[in-house]
Amino acid sequence: MTAAPPPVIILVQPQLGQNIGKAARAMLNFGLTEMRLVAPRDGWPNPDSGPAASGADIVLERAQVFSSVAEAIADCSQVFASTVRKRDVMTPVVGPVEMASAIHASPARSAILFGPERSGLATEDVVQASHIVTVPINPVFGSLNLAQAVILLAYEWSRSASLVQPTAFELEPRAPQAELDGLIGQLEGHLDAVGYFHPPERTQATRNTIRTILTKPGWSSRELKAMRGMLRAIAQPRVRSNTSNS
Amino acid sequence: MTAAPPPVIILVQPQLGQNIGKAARAMLNFGLTEMRLVAPRDGWPNPDSGPAASGADIVLERAQVFSSVAEAIADCSQVFASTVRKRDVMTPVVGPVEMASAIHASPARSAILFGPERSGLATEDVVQASHIVTVPINPVFGSLNLAQAVILLAYEWSRSASLVQPTAFELEPRAPQAELDGLIGQLEGHLDAVGYFHPPERTQATRNTIRTILTKPGWSSRELKAMRGMLRAIAQPRVRSNTSNS
Repeated sequence: MTAAPPPVIILVQPQLGQNIGKAARAMLNFGLTEMRLVAPRDGWPNPDSGPAASGADIVLERAQVFSSVAEAIADCSQVFASTVRKRDVMTPVVGPVEMASAIHASPARSAILFGPERSGLATEDVVQASHIVTVPINPVFGSLNLAQAVILLAYEWSRSASLVQPTAFELEPRAPQAELDGLIGQLEGHLDAVGYFHPPERTQATRNTIRTILTKPGWSSRELKAMRGMLRAIAQPRVRSNTSNS
Repeated sequence: MTAAPPPVIILVQPQLGQNIGKAARAMLNFGLTEMRLVAPRDGWPNPDSGPAASGADIVLERAQVFSSVAEAIADCSQVFASTVRKRDVMTPVVGPVEMASAIHASPARSAILFGPERSGLATEDVVQASHIVTVPINPVFGSLNLAQAVILLAYEWSRSASLVQPTAFELEPRAPQAELDGLIGQLEGHLDAVGYFHPPERTQATRNTIRTILTKPGWSSRELKAMRGMLRAIAQPRVRSNTSNS
């Protein structure tokens, strides 16, 4: 058996305190206790949350607030973005069962991201995730609310908890998100230096592509370090040569 | 696959119209359309149901009303009583997965019974069922509401129904090996040009590391092309600057 930690549930810009409470209740039903809130619309704490939590107060009391998705997932090695809509990004899409298996197989911390009630996750949040997780719902009637999405994924995690097999391959664990961000930041810096990001209106799309491509591998800390070393080696001589020219 | 009919969802003495609407919404998310109501407290139809159904009106419009559980299940061959409490009855207890398998395995009609919001199913209703179905929840915090119990069992039924569907991974296919070799060759070329491969006795180990790191992602043709473009952008200005120096 693995000692995989339970996933962190991250609500991105939740609108109603009531829904935060319902999500907490849904979590605790299946043994999840760690909630993070990114920029909750009405601030935090929210007096509407408690009654809706129906006794899951401990989840609300321990909830941590962050101002950005990047900060909220910085210590997480695998991040699943819960969406129902098709997204025009290259992030791999998995179902709840595959998500649960991946969480149970990872000794590092995982997170599941949920977007605001009305709009769902923004693309710039989705591309920070290692995977998209989509509950396969009725194609002609997909209408899951926030707490329902949370409970279904929490249920699936809990259900799979007893089915976990030790993994055959001893993979190095995925590095924390902050280290991946280091690689992405470095690469973007190199690219920026050579004028890669033009025209400006395409810059964000290009950055999204870079992020999904580099998130997909699930590189370990050691692998990230090697990639950064190679990029530095390729990029630096140019800098030196420019310097000597000046 | 079997031609097993989807299960009928039977709400026994539901109290709030709102909860009937939410149950209808939960059902339709996973393709269940047949709802039966046994002696709804506030009569039927109930004006509070429609708004809570969020568009699942067809389920409400077709709902049939019965005055007793016995009448509501008369045409059903397998009946699952959803309860969370331990019951002092000899009815066999199954989990959601076993329930779903049994429903899919039966060519005859199945039903799932849910009790009133506050009290749950009465013992005299439970004993009419062929099985008790219990969602395994947190032993120290079991707090599923009606719609949540419905959605979890509907999800489990739907999940088992779709196990023959195409894979949950909607990844772009891995590029052919030759394309990956193209990226690796290009990167090694850039690195060689800046004297990265020294000392010579470490070269092979370094090349092996590069190959394992770049093989791991399983990048598609499109992703490989993007990576090659970025590496070229970073490496070329140096080449140009060298050329202009020579």
